[in-house]
Amino acid sequence: MRLDRRSLLVGAAALTTTSVISRPTHAAALQPVEVVRGLQNPWAVAFLPDGRQLVTERPGRLRLIVDGRLQPEPVAGVPPVHAVNQGGLLDVVAHPRFGTNGWIYLSYAAPHADGAATTIARARLNGARLEGFQVLIEATPRQAGGHHFGCRLAFLPDGTLLATVGERNQRQRAQRLDDLAGKVLRLHEDGRVPTDNPLVGRSDARPEIHSWGHRNPQGLAVHPTTGEAWITDHGPRGGDEVNVLRAGRNYGWPVVTHGVEYSGMTITELRSAPGIEDPLHLWTPSIAPAGLAFVTSPRRPDWQGSLVSGALAGRMLVRLVLDGPRVVREERHLEREIGRIRDVRQGPDGHLWLLTDAGDGALLRV
Amino acid sequence: MRLDRRSLLVGAAALTTTSVISRPTHAAALQPVEVVRGLQNPWAVAFLPDGRQLVTERPGRLRLIVDGRLQPEPVAGVPPVHAVNQGGLLDVVAHPRFGTNGWIYLSYAAPHADGAATTIARARLNGARLEGFQVLIEATPRQAGGHHFGCRLAFLPDGTLLATVGERNQRQRAQRLDDLAGKVLRLHEDGRVPTDNPLVGRSDARPEIHSWGHRNPQGLAVHPTTGEAWITDHGPRGGDEVNVLRAGRNYGWPVVTHGVEYSGMTITELRSAPGIEDPLHLWTPSIAPAGLAFVTSPRRPDWQGSLVSGALAGRMLVRLVLDGPRVVREERHLEREIGRIRDVRQGPDGHLWLLTDAGDGALLRV
Repeated sequence: MRLDRRSLLVGAAALTTTSVISRPTHAAALQPVEVVRGLQNPWAVAFLPDGRQLVTERPGRLRLIVDGRLQPEPVAGVPPVHAVNQGGLLDVVAHPRFGTNGWIYLSYAAPHADGAATTIARARLNGARLEGFQVLIEATPRQAGGHHFGCRLAFLPDGTLLATVGERNQRQRAQRLDDLAGKVLRLHEDGRVPTDNPLVGRSDARPEIHSWGHRNPQGLAVHPTTGEAWITDHGPRGGDEVNVLRAGRNYGWPVVTHGVEYSGMTITELRSAPGIEDPLHLWTPSIAPAGLAFVTSPRRPDWQGSLVSGALAGRMLVRLVLDGPRVVREERHLEREIGRIRDVRQGPDGHLWLLTDAGDGALLRV
Repeated sequence: MRLDRRSLLVGAAALTTTSVISRPTHAAALQPVEVVRGLQNPWAVAFLPDGRQLVTERPGRLRLIVDGRLQPEPVAGVPPVHAVNQGGLLDVVAHPRFGTNGWIYLSYAAPHADGAATTIARARLNGARLEGFQVLIEATPRQAGGHHFGCRLAFLPDGTLLATVGERNQRQRAQRLDDLAGKVLRLHEDGRVPTDNPLVGRSDARPEIHSWGHRNPQGLAVHPTTGEAWITDHGPRGGDEVNVLRAGRNYGWPVVTHGVEYSGMTITELRSAPGIEDPLHLWTPSIAPAGLAFVTSPRRPDWQGSLVSGALAGRMLVRLVLDGPRVVREERHLEREIGRIRDVRQGPDGHLWLLTDAGDGALLRV
């Protein structure tokens, strides 16, 4: 099915946010298979074309899995990270042409004396060693503390790289256009800024910004037919969101939210506003979505075309059944069975691969 | 001998540069003892109060030497470096209170997609692992290429940290006060800027700057009685210098130099100028000084009170005999005997320790 891009956008804009909160239904039990255990707070898994997997551990290690076996020595050459609370080594993705260029991309909280910042870098994986390491961008300004770094990475079909950056628990930063926190950034693969980014040429804005008004987006997946990026974002208390990213758009945090303060106090009365994108889907109470993937494989035919998300607080795998740009049903799987789910990706074998967020975390296949 | 600070400064200012170019004399042969070999382009040695040594290898490894044995595994947690030409992992020094706080300080060329920059960081050494890594400052702007990073580190008696930063082979940067290249920087131990730095409060200047007009200073030592910092700096072709650093002073590169272009062309006719500090000592032709130490130990009584410098191109150890702030004699030792000397320090045992710059470099004691 090739979705028409124009109808998708019109459809998304026409949705009311309440219409898309479908209730979960019970579903056939999944049987996850453990691939490896003993991962310390794994955050992301990436698949290499030679069949190996890379897994980040939040404390700052990058691990290789070869033929289903976790290699005892971490990959050498990973930068020091700010491994505090939600900070540390975060996402890893392979370049779409990894097989010829060897580049992998990392996101992490970089430690500086004047505060940490979400940082994107790349390096070539040579055996079990990173070479030619380069920082592509640091989402400045830096700030003390260990919350809301984001940061998922994905390549768009045009070869540019998206990075979802959290607002460092300073909500006003998400609406400041001279600040890279609370934004989705778009870069060329070598760190240069694409000249067609929406704020290029504005003296009051950072040209790396693709969209803004995000809180702590930890899910990012590129739609297999439209090529659009979909993200999940953590609301405060309630108001977790699914959004379709469009260049130059404001996703509202903290001007508009369906969430409230952790204390229960109101953040804003606004649930929608002109000039601000409405979410496609909401979770209240929050599930803390993390990891996001489109299912394209025919391995489980009834899942084909769905969007799947892990959940940390929700301790489950969520399947969102889509009708074009609409979420028509939500299913909840593995609820309280395997713990907090930090990442979900579709592997080259067509299986879904999950990471559990724990001191003794696991890579699982379902 | 306690030197009077005031007379030292007056004496230095009164010197003419030609008067201090003394000719080397022959001296009794030194007998260096090899401590360890097999170091890849070692750059700096630091002494820990428990008797261990730390050695940086320019390609990006930090090595531990315990009881005279090089530990096979490098220290973990060192950042990736821009190991190109003169870039890489450079200096290492222990905090003056390392025994209680465990901090070590590193300088290195940090790799970014838009260029490298000399960067200063600290971390706690725990066993053979760095923890709590923090970047203190990056000597921006970044720039492509692999030349003239500096960068020696030393603590002053007041507890602040000096870092000598090269001008990245872009000579005009050394005179720009909004640019950290070609400068000596002064920071608190935690990276904060001392409020008594000379350019604090100027809107057109970086407050981290202590002095400027430097080219590629690779020697830095604190005088044992005056507490002043002495540096060596590489001239272009000729004009290597020894300088006593004073806050807010201009050391002249490239406005004033005794060196010429590598082609032999004139850079400037000026050998001295108002408002620019004259060097204490000059080497023409260049010896490429690297590493610098005051000899305080009575182990070799005739050397006590001297300043010693390694030499790369000169492949020797130079002893400068001082009379207060004056260099009264230059002796050349180990000439062409052990190769390029990258570092010289006086160890806690009173011996001088040398590093040779080679793919199979050595730590030697004399």
